[in-house]
Amino acid sequence: MSSFDMTAWSSKQLLLVEQSLMQWVPEAAPAGLGEAMRYAVLDGGKRLRPLLVLASLEACVGDSPAAPMSEAAMRAACAIELIHAYSLVHDDMPCMDNDVLRRGKPTVHVKFGEAGALLSGDALQTLAFELLTPSDSEIPSQVQARLCGLLARGAGHAGMAGGQAIDLASVGVQLSIDQLRTMHRCKTGALLETSVLMGAQAAQAGPQAMKALLSYGQALGVAFQVVDDILDVTADTAVLGKTAGKDAENNKPTYVSLLGLEGARKEATALAEQAHQALADSALMQTQALRALADWVLQRQH
Amino acid sequence: MSSFDMTAWSSKQLLLVEQSLMQWVPEAAPAGLGEAMRYAVLDGGKRLRPLLVLASLEACVGDSPAAPMSEAAMRAACAIELIHAYSLVHDDMPCMDNDVLRRGKPTVHVKFGEAGALLSGDALQTLAFELLTPSDSEIPSQVQARLCGLLARGAGHAGMAGGQAIDLASVGVQLSIDQLRTMHRCKTGALLETSVLMGAQAAQAGPQAMKALLSYGQALGVAFQVVDDILDVTADTAVLGKTAGKDAENNKPTYVSLLGLEGARKEATALAEQAHQALADSALMQTQALRALADWVLQRQH
Repeated sequence: MSSFDMTAWSSKQLLLVEQSLMQWVPEAAPAGLGEAMRYAVLDGGKRLRPLLVLASLEACVGDSPAAPMSEAAMRAACAIELIHAYSLVHDDMPCMDNDVLRRGKPTVHVKFGEAGALLSGDALQTLAFELLTPSDSEIPSQVQARLCGLLARGAGHAGMAGGQAIDLASVGVQLSIDQLRTMHRCKTGALLETSVLMGAQAAQAGPQAMKALLSYGQALGVAFQVVDDILDVTADTAVLGKTAGKDAENNKPTYVSLLGLEGARKEATALAEQAHQALADSALMQTQALRALADWVLQRQH
Repeated sequence: MSSFDMTAWSSKQLLLVEQSLMQWVPEAAPAGLGEAMRYAVLDGGKRLRPLLVLASLEACVGDSPAAPMSEAAMRAACAIELIHAYSLVHDDMPCMDNDVLRRGKPTVHVKFGEAGALLSGDALQTLAFELLTPSDSEIPSQVQARLCGLLARGAGHAGMAGGQAIDLASVGVQLSIDQLRTMHRCKTGALLETSVLMGAQAAQAGPQAMKALLSYGQALGVAFQVVDDILDVTADTAVLGKTAGKDAENNKPTYVSLLGLEGARKEATALAEQAHQALADSALMQTQALRALADWVLQRQH
């Protein structure tokens, strides 16, 4: 196995993602809307979802994709980050988690008011679908339509929004481990899975590649949430960039509350192994970046 | 001119729209989310936007469109109604207009709580794009992609959401008539224009038809808002189905506050005439329904 420099790979990709977001999230949107949208999206965040899109493209077609594939993947990477950003803006609002700190900065409603947070979140969601449907591009219409369809299904009532509804209804409720898994498969997992599938769609990958990547994405999605729950207990607010210990305070069920800290760690390790196995069993050509991302999800400190 | 029975036409179309919404807005979305989504959308509303989509399709291709065109238009009609419904749900929330009555019923946040309103509005927006991108349909990918693009542009930062941001920033501020027009062209006009354009896109209409319909849609969009402002002053809460007199109470600039009641009525009449003229100047084949909708916008009592 040749050595793969994940730091170099992700630095290169992140630079392109940040440049694209800077270009596509409009500064000029009226009456402060653009300012709030950019505050919510730029200069922050781990960008895991965009990196998954780009790593998935690379797994399907290697590191020199044709220009329309490359453009489709970058639009998909930014679109899914906009969906993620909108969900955080709305989640942090007083009627939801009522959080004042995000990525080490005041949350959007603290900075721009509740109405500003509501509206900028709404507009970020819309912008995601605008990014995916450029009228002056060589991205095939079929790819544009499929990317919109994947994103809408991952973000909507049967995906992220559905998971948030379950989450909302679960505060102070005793969940079984299966119910907790269902909630997180929707709330966090759906968008991580969708990231991987959008990268494959940008590459116009076939059903076998799609199936392997779905399997990888499903395991990774749950692993991410298990580690999130562990970090909520073990990490500092300063390192985390958001308020630690919120789950216990809000009496929310977590993997740690159900499995204990050691049990949750074992679960995360087993899931990361499943993700690796899905890649090992596949015929995908260049999976180093996907493998490194699975390791990162397991080992991350924030 | 043959006689055209608008009541029969719209009854027939509305039945199909309601049936489609009943089918497509999911009852089974988890943890009460589906219930809130359906409450926000079903059994209420004038359905002006869906009717514009369907009338626009008919103007382009007559009243017996091919099945994929008909399906595309019905999906577009429902998608734009979902966007409209989500915007009302979020607009009514305490941090925005704080309204408790909509279509004669308690608003969504009164019935389902603020978090329920926030989430169901979010999921309704996402569902709009899901409806437009069925993977098992004969609607050409190009039409699917263009419909998503039109809807995202009409609903987003440069359209409806941008207009709402201007509106929010304008409470208690003295606007000129030009600034007021800009605000409403975005806030209300953009989605009405988009309805007409989506109908034309479902028909795969050419640039000339698109141009005529855009011109019709622009005039109609502003006329609708002028009449809205008139009704806020002249209509009863009971007839209106929402709280009357809110604009004056909130010190919001309106066409009536700037032009007076008579001036606003003249403006509305002139705009409706512009809409009719755009159709008369076009080569569109069957414009009775579009003409009747322009008349309805002018004469409506709620």
